[in-house]
Amino acid sequence: MKNFSEWFHNILEEAELMDARYPIKGMSVWLPRGFQIRKYALNALQELLDKDHEEVLFPMLIPQSELAKEAIHVKGFEEEVYWVTKGGKRDLNEHLALRPTSETSIYPMFSLWVRSHMDLPIKVYQTVNTFRYETKHTRPLIRVREITTFNETHTAHATEEEAEKEVMEGIEIYKTFFDELGIPYSISKRPEWDKFPGSKYTMAFDMIMPDGKTLQIATVHNLGTTFAHTFDIQFENEDGTHDYVHQVCYGLSDRVIASLIAAHGDEKGLSLPPVVAPEQVIIIPIIFKENQDVVLNFTDNLEKLLKNNGIRVKQDKRELRPGKKYYEWEKRGVPLRIEVGPRDIENNTIVINRRDTGNKEFVDYDENTVVDVVKDRLDSITHDMKEASNKFQEEKTFAIEKPEQIKKTINKKGGIITCSWCGETDCGKDMEEKFDIDVLGTQESDLENKTCINCGKDASYKVLISKTY
Amino acid sequence: MKNFSEWFHNILEEAELMDARYPIKGMSVWLPRGFQIRKYALNALQELLDKDHEEVLFPMLIPQSELAKEAIHVKGFEEEVYWVTKGGKRDLNEHLALRPTSETSIYPMFSLWVRSHMDLPIKVYQTVNTFRYETKHTRPLIRVREITTFNETHTAHATEEEAEKEVMEGIEIYKTFFDELGIPYSISKRPEWDKFPGSKYTMAFDMIMPDGKTLQIATVHNLGTTFAHTFDIQFENEDGTHDYVHQVCYGLSDRVIASLIAAHGDEKGLSLPPVVAPEQVIIIPIIFKENQDVVLNFTDNLEKLLKNNGIRVKQDKRELRPGKKYYEWEKRGVPLRIEVGPRDIENNTIVINRRDTGNKEFVDYDENTVVDVVKDRLDSITHDMKEASNKFQEEKTFAIEKPEQIKKTINKKGGIITCSWCGETDCGKDMEEKFDIDVLGTQESDLENKTCINCGKDASYKVLISKTY
Repeated sequence: MKNFSEWFHNILEEAELMDARYPIKGMSVWLPRGFQIRKYALNALQELLDKDHEEVLFPMLIPQSELAKEAIHVKGFEEEVYWVTKGGKRDLNEHLALRPTSETSIYPMFSLWVRSHMDLPIKVYQTVNTFRYETKHTRPLIRVREITTFNETHTAHATEEEAEKEVMEGIEIYKTFFDELGIPYSISKRPEWDKFPGSKYTMAFDMIMPDGKTLQIATVHNLGTTFAHTFDIQFENEDGTHDYVHQVCYGLSDRVIASLIAAHGDEKGLSLPPVVAPEQVIIIPIIFKENQDVVLNFTDNLEKLLKNNGIRVKQDKRELRPGKKYYEWEKRGVPLRIEVGPRDIENNTIVINRRDTGNKEFVDYDENTVVDVVKDRLDSITHDMKEASNKFQEEKTFAIEKPEQIKKTINKKGGIITCSWCGETDCGKDMEEKFDIDVLGTQESDLENKTCINCGKDASYKVLISKTY
Repeated sequence: MKNFSEWFHNILEEAELMDARYPIKGMSVWLPRGFQIRKYALNALQELLDKDHEEVLFPMLIPQSELAKEAIHVKGFEEEVYWVTKGGKRDLNEHLALRPTSETSIYPMFSLWVRSHMDLPIKVYQTVNTFRYETKHTRPLIRVREITTFNETHTAHATEEEAEKEVMEGIEIYKTFFDELGIPYSISKRPEWDKFPGSKYTMAFDMIMPDGKTLQIATVHNLGTTFAHTFDIQFENEDGTHDYVHQVCYGLSDRVIASLIAAHGDEKGLSLPPVVAPEQVIIIPIIFKENQDVVLNFTDNLEKLLKNNGIRVKQDKRELRPGKKYYEWEKRGVPLRIEVGPRDIENNTIVINRRDTGNKEFVDYDENTVVDVVKDRLDSITHDMKEASNKFQEEKTFAIEKPEQIKKTINKKGGIITCSWCGETDCGKDMEEKFDIDVLGTQESDLENKTCINCGKDASYKVLISKTY
């Protein structure tokens, strides 16, 4: 696509996902089709979380005194917090923050819940709306003032080791989730100056968008004992001594839907992986007056057969030209289209079209095998969509050794550049300014005999850099 | 129960449903068990709504100018609205309301969506958090400042007849839903002075709580064309003329969970209808050291068998006295308990205990029939719990003919009084003051030769009165 920004703006409207005309900047309405996609995506995520975490729901407002307790944390958010100052016509004694994120609403309760080592670990998650007073240019799903879908996990552990294990578990959950949705990602450890305020370190998932810039799509934070000290979350060991808990939190947001749209969409519109598609199959009966009954009898049976076997299927019987229907359902991203006309019924075939590849296939029709055929094609679509989007991310990731190549590569090809780096904050910030890029983070790598691409000192990390959203 | 208020307060903590210690008055935390019950209840409701409505999600904040547009409406809410006045350190140009209810956030968008009669009807719903700055005494789930679970349906129609049909549909959906949960109700048309601000009329569901006062648990509003005029929601007819849409909205909240708890709970704790129970069956193996393997082998099989057949089952293998386990799971409201000890296995029986009746039954064990037996008992529980709670509501509803009986009956027995009424607002308000009760609303009835219990004029309605929450 030539202009991703314009394409993205249009597709939200054309595929009936969101309405951005709500009368507050940066806040949009989820339309029924968008809401369905959001629901199926959340279901896939929650299924993974539910194996080892419990769902809870905390209040949306946070007292100013609680938010203010963790100084580094509040500093990271204070410019962006919405404040409730009035109830009815009265001024409130204490101002209340619309949660920008929920650490300071959840951890005072953890402090009440944790008494002994028997109470640990606590592993909970919630899906809530959060708020940021964005002063930058907003864009639906990507940079918003109400994050309508913030899925956040918060855990507390007796030991550092267990917290480290939880970090790995969070990363694995997100990898599995993004793989299911065919969303590509690069994982790195954010640099010191870009970690979550108050955390020990932050692991982040970044996706390369079609315009070459990266979008942060998920983060996993090891909080160490910072918040435990701030909110006094202590437990008693078996031997009667007391310790502070080690905490982890991780989250993702509406941006998952943006990355889903961006990873798979094309000039024809949306293209959805079967797992999140409101309709996985659309059946188009090709109807002429003289044989209407024969065709509809056939397609009604087919629809029923697929539905009874757990496939989300819809039939479009409207009196419109087939071409017009194809156009509409392609725009909406339905993974598989089945066309059936009178001649197909005579020949005992159906025509199966894939949205992702545009591939058209004539399949012999057999009531006993058609469900398996459709399921097989849906599986292939899931597999191929993931491969295709991963390939894009790989092809847009460039290993660079010379500093003069950085700006050239980024400006010409976009994507992520990997190179060697000393790991010093001063050098990293210098790089960001000099090359007009952002340091995404570091990965472990064999760096023997390698030097920092910027300052020439011994290299300590493989670093990922890019232009970012 | 002697003191319902105290019992209700304790059960939230003891059955691990909510934590009311959150540091803002009137806002509580949903704990994992409470959240599960809420989820299953919502699932049951949404299944009914999804047949004929689409789910959407609107922003939480409403610009002051939109909220102010419908004067009667805003008058009904202005004392209770929380206002966001600051973003970061800046004062906002326009104050933003935390939605007290969503008419004024949704209908400006309806105005954009509706162009022609082809766009109608619109039938959408959402489940969101809403806010009321309550100055009265708050109580979790019943009178709160954050309604964490507000399920609201909003529809727009071309004709008054269709709107009337939607009112009936809303009432039917709620009847079915409450019946599934075994929540009893009386339906009446709220008097003029207590209808939804801006509506034509309000139909309401009230449940008699164990303390004899009624709790409003759902409302259905025919909005007529009031909001359509305010927000300019017009459509073009086939003949080119324009009309305003007719609107309906209906909603229910967290109070459903309060009524669920109150309708079925007893001195032992919570008692849950199977449809919302996190565990429908709890299996307690009675273990002695010498035959531990035999018993656990048996109960593991039983657990797997029930689970594979879609029953939510859990086994409690903890090393505790059985009596302690019974006590705990009864408090948590699990509908069915199965005990299996070494002697039971010898006799080829299992012991099935019902939480609702306390009934204990020895059942011959057969792998081929045990699933059906358990499902049958769960169905009986669902049926009997509904019967029992309906009976309570019926027995607490008293037809009264003489005014002097009103105060006596209410003060002695609580519940709902039905009597004849003229229908005049002045007379109704006079009654409320004189008898220290609330007029719930009216029902259709044969009133030939009946006179108003208060003023003696000809009666127009059967009226329901009670003390209310």
